[in-house]
Amino acid sequence: MSRGVFITIEGIEGSGKSTQARLLAEALRAEGRQVTLTREPGGTRVGEAIRALFLDPATALDPVAEVMLVLADRAQHVREKLAPALAAGAVAISDRYGDSTVAYQGYGRGFDLKLLGELNRLASSGIAPDLTILLDCPVETGLSRTRERAKGALREPDRFEGETLEFHRRVREGFRMIAAAEPGRVTVVDSTASLESVQREVRRLVEELLSRRCL
Amino acid sequence: MSRGVFITIEGIEGSGKSTQARLLAEALRAEGRQVTLTREPGGTRVGEAIRALFLDPATALDPVAEVMLVLADRAQHVREKLAPALAAGAVAISDRYGDSTVAYQGYGRGFDLKLLGELNRLASSGIAPDLTILLDCPVETGLSRTRERAKGALREPDRFEGETLEFHRRVREGFRMIAAAEPGRVTVVDSTASLESVQREVRRLVEELLSRRCL
Repeated sequence: MSRGVFITIEGIEGSGKSTQARLLAEALRAEGRQVTLTREPGGTRVGEAIRALFLDPATALDPVAEVMLVLADRAQHVREKLAPALAAGAVAISDRYGDSTVAYQGYGRGFDLKLLGELNRLASSGIAPDLTILLDCPVETGLSRTRERAKGALREPDRFEGETLEFHRRVREGFRMIAAAEPGRVTVVDSTASLESVQREVRRLVEELLSRRCL
Repeated sequence: MSRGVFITIEGIEGSGKSTQARLLAEALRAEGRQVTLTREPGGTRVGEAIRALFLDPATALDPVAEVMLVLADRAQHVREKLAPALAAGAVAISDRYGDSTVAYQGYGRGFDLKLLGELNRLASSGIAPDLTILLDCPVETGLSRTRERAKGALREPDRFEGETLEFHRRVREGFRMIAAAEPGRVTVVDSTASLESVQREVRRLVEELLSRRCL
């Protein structure tokens, strides 16, 4: 059914996901490809409202509520944006997807991984990425980047940026466990390298996927 | 752990839940009791934001997103409002709770009832009503009430008020199935009777519960 290609960019805070997703989208568009660049939470009107609740440092969000919100966002995102884009043959690039839920809510918060897997499948209607690029860096590197960025933008750190180092270490470990379990789908890219060299590596992985798919 | 009493008022659109919940709260307060009157979705800041998304007729909400939103709302509501109120010994009255999820998303939308039961337990941290009053009336009666009310308030019918008769019939049937399965917790009250006589019946059921609990 799906004629397009689905790429997700994953990683901890400050690993460079949004920048690399944008650069990748620009490069593919410059090649004349149809690209949908999107993100989670967000990507839809409902999703952006969920994102605001989700990241607000003033929200003392219950951990189960956090899981359910991110799944609500995913279900809406898949139905309203990802499924139509893929059906239309686009390259869809999502800044975060199901792996973030497993890493943050599963490994980070301790939500039951088996139930989370079942709920993730339900929320994603079975739409799984063709390629996931995990931008990996030490949590200290990532967090110092996001905190600088927040300061530069004169905003408070969001609810996740404000979490403990210990939490972020569990999240990073979660991402690495996912990558180890699914090497065919997930490729780890060291994001402590320069922006340009990460960008080249991301392009290489995507070109490889596209040529394998004869696109 | 919970020293208070938890009463939920359930029923289809226009069955009189909000009015009866308010009248009950007023009567109990007049007796000098500590009462927390609340509702789902809503009851918390996060919940009221979810409620706005949930009821907005302009939201084409994915059915899985709908379930997840209502569960997020419940988890937050229990943690932030219901559990503290019950721990403080209050009579908590909620206009809708878990049965609405089973009736609307389960029977109405067709979401798997077994999984819904599991998620409901998770989101409610095991906090179950001591008494549920199901205000029952034919869907035609309920819907004509809510549509009149919407017209009077110069607002559009909300996302549920605008649903088909067939949908509301499944929801009503769902509520009746729940009541039949749990007669010890759920009492059905015919809400086609006058407001005053429904109010008397609700008061009688609640007084019975309170005296059984020696309160």
